[in-house]
Amino acid sequence: MKQIRIGMLGCGIVGSAVLRMLARNRSDIERRVGAQVEVVRVAVRNPSKERDVPEGIEALYTTDAHAVVRDPLVQIVVEVMGGIEPARSLLVEAMEGGKHVVTANKELLASLGRELFDAAERAGVDLYFEAAVGGGIPLIHPLKESLAGERIRKVMGIVNGTTNFILTRMSEEGISFSAALAEAERLGYTELDPSADIEGFDPAAKAAILASIAFNTRVVAGDVYREGIAAITQQDIAFAARLGYAVKLLAIAESQDGEVAVRVHPAMIPRTHPLASVRDNLNAVFVQGENVGELMFLGRGAGGPPTGTSVVGDVLDIARNILSGGRGVGCTCYTEKTVRPMETMFAQYYILLKVADLPGVLASVAGVFGHNNVSIGSVWQEGVGEEAQLVLITHRAMERDLRATLHDLRELEAVTKVASVMRVEGGEA
Amino acid sequence: MKQIRIGMLGCGIVGSAVLRMLARNRSDIERRVGAQVEVVRVAVRNPSKERDVPEGIEALYTTDAHAVVRDPLVQIVVEVMGGIEPARSLLVEAMEGGKHVVTANKELLASLGRELFDAAERAGVDLYFEAAVGGGIPLIHPLKESLAGERIRKVMGIVNGTTNFILTRMSEEGISFSAALAEAERLGYTELDPSADIEGFDPAAKAAILASIAFNTRVVAGDVYREGIAAITQQDIAFAARLGYAVKLLAIAESQDGEVAVRVHPAMIPRTHPLASVRDNLNAVFVQGENVGELMFLGRGAGGPPTGTSVVGDVLDIARNILSGGRGVGCTCYTEKTVRPMETMFAQYYILLKVADLPGVLASVAGVFGHNNVSIGSVWQEGVGEEAQLVLITHRAMERDLRATLHDLRELEAVTKVASVMRVEGGEA
Repeated sequence: MKQIRIGMLGCGIVGSAVLRMLARNRSDIERRVGAQVEVVRVAVRNPSKERDVPEGIEALYTTDAHAVVRDPLVQIVVEVMGGIEPARSLLVEAMEGGKHVVTANKELLASLGRELFDAAERAGVDLYFEAAVGGGIPLIHPLKESLAGERIRKVMGIVNGTTNFILTRMSEEGISFSAALAEAERLGYTELDPSADIEGFDPAAKAAILASIAFNTRVVAGDVYREGIAAITQQDIAFAARLGYAVKLLAIAESQDGEVAVRVHPAMIPRTHPLASVRDNLNAVFVQGENVGELMFLGRGAGGPPTGTSVVGDVLDIARNILSGGRGVGCTCYTEKTVRPMETMFAQYYILLKVADLPGVLASVAGVFGHNNVSIGSVWQEGVGEEAQLVLITHRAMERDLRATLHDLRELEAVTKVASVMRVEGGEA
Repeated sequence: MKQIRIGMLGCGIVGSAVLRMLARNRSDIERRVGAQVEVVRVAVRNPSKERDVPEGIEALYTTDAHAVVRDPLVQIVVEVMGGIEPARSLLVEAMEGGKHVVTANKELLASLGRELFDAAERAGVDLYFEAAVGGGIPLIHPLKESLAGERIRKVMGIVNGTTNFILTRMSEEGISFSAALAEAERLGYTELDPSADIEGFDPAAKAAILASIAFNTRVVAGDVYREGIAAITQQDIAFAARLGYAVKLLAIAESQDGEVAVRVHPAMIPRTHPLASVRDNLNAVFVQGENVGELMFLGRGAGGPPTGTSVVGDVLDIARNILSGGRGVGCTCYTEKTVRPMETMFAQYYILLKVADLPGVLASVAGVFGHNNVSIGSVWQEGVGEEAQLVLITHRAMERDLRATLHDLRELEAVTKVASVMRVEGGEA
């Protein structure tokens, strides 16, 4: 029987899950692919570290990652070490040596994707990365292949499990952001420094990758407008619930007038929207296409075994390509579209104002909105006296106009505080 | 520029949507595939029928379907005519002539899939059918490719939009089954004869296809246990809601002790389950895997443009295979597993009994369950006197034992009627 030989870079929770799957499902994999898939080398920093790997793997450890990418036996390099360097140099070297690559490295792809794809193109090899967005969720292949004949209008996803867990707890248990964060930390859902999640850096990298694929143009992480969830209060979530909305941290990429708009921010979405019921640390990506209408892909966005499933799927896809002499889909960024500045994007907004309980307050507030071309969809007043507040939901408005509105509201005597501003998604088109 | 030439069999709502997509997205498709994709012949029964197709297509019409599958120019045959014959003979002839095939024909695949795949294997051609289950939802490729290294435990889906629409209306509007069916008919969601949907024949064919792929063994439509939704009452839905459940018509395939269990029936699922919030005529398929955990794929299960998207995706996938000299994944039914008889399947059950309001009723009812090895999870009594009823939810029990329990309950003097029985899914494992 033919053999396909794998070299691995890294052997953490994803890498060891990949090794366990390849061993445990060995006979099924042979029959599905028509070849034995053999791991022949594994680059690790510390060979004596305890790892949950199949028997015999220890003998394949090397601390010399270059030896893996130069090994003439290796046909597919699996990179699960993460970070920019040395991953970048190792993968470029591997591809220049004619090796196919599977990587789960969203950070690398979202900043230096073009360089990697150019190297793959020059060498005529496959570069797959299903695991880089949405962990175990099949997403990259469906977007590139199943929707190859479609025009995608919008991609909107919950692509960070930690923040979705926090928002779910705040919503279902009525606890504060900091209490929910502490619970996420206790359960081991957060990184040592939780800011990549909380401040939206992790979902911004994923948004850049999704936007690049959906709109056939290269978007990098730095292009993505980004707001985190630390400012979300229990009151925002309670108001959202009363209005029929859930609060989610969304990564959004959409096509507007031939440009691409990409952003990560918390948003209110209608409770009947499929994304609203994505709970705990699940991920989900919602896609709108001209013909296909609405699609949603849901699953586990992190963790060794789910992410490992996507890595193994890519490895086996490439193994089949090697055996049949075929080639997978390469870079699909064949256009150069402008990334739209946040100021010119359109959205609906929820605004909570603390106001003086005086006659004429609503008129002066409404005047400010009108003056700035922001149309109010609904408004009502809560409480009286010192506690008086106005809740407003706008129609679709331009971000620049909304910012001018907020500026003017803060100048109004009747408005004591602009307490909250949040975008509303999944509603009017 | 290279050309890939398509022959179409049928030009109804799906076929015409395929033709419109290929025309409208022509330049994107060229850049994504690296070739022009040209339709060269279209077999139709009635060429003079009004169709919403791009200019110039009429000139490609022929009433001779055999001429399409024999045309030496045609490289890919797209079958969107439906039904068993003449589709079966035409596709076999096409493949014997070296042509690749894309079909949306669930009925044909669910009854004669083996014959078609044998023909594809002998001829060394691709046979793709993404559109046959779940319309526009990428499902078949993810299951066969992205999850190629995974062990799937269970596939559970809402794969019929009409019945999901009816159940959604019954649940959200509190209307009866017949009122909801009438509304579905008014909106054009039903076939002329709605029984294929209502009685579960349509989802049973899809369950057979999903089971075949998920468990690598051939399952045909006739193997699938089937119950429809006509017996679901407003009371069942109201009780389900009070207990925290939604009622859905589910197609379920699971692996049990090395055998495959496949069935279609209405079931109660917890409101927090991702399938519970799949509303109106949307479809969704939930997958449980050993490593990947939970996945769900949601979208439009019917209609020309969504289904056409899947057909076009398959066409372009095959076009790339032709250009690169590769080959897609063929038949994956490499094992022969027994289809488990319904009597030996396990599930939880909801049971509604009309009972005499007498002392000792609960004891005698509980005695019947215990005697038949069915363990009761929860129970409570509703109403008094003539209106008295018992609602029970069992733990997981064998279907055979449950049937014996129901038989014995009907013999009990204290039980005036077994008013409802429904399986409970998505709960205890």
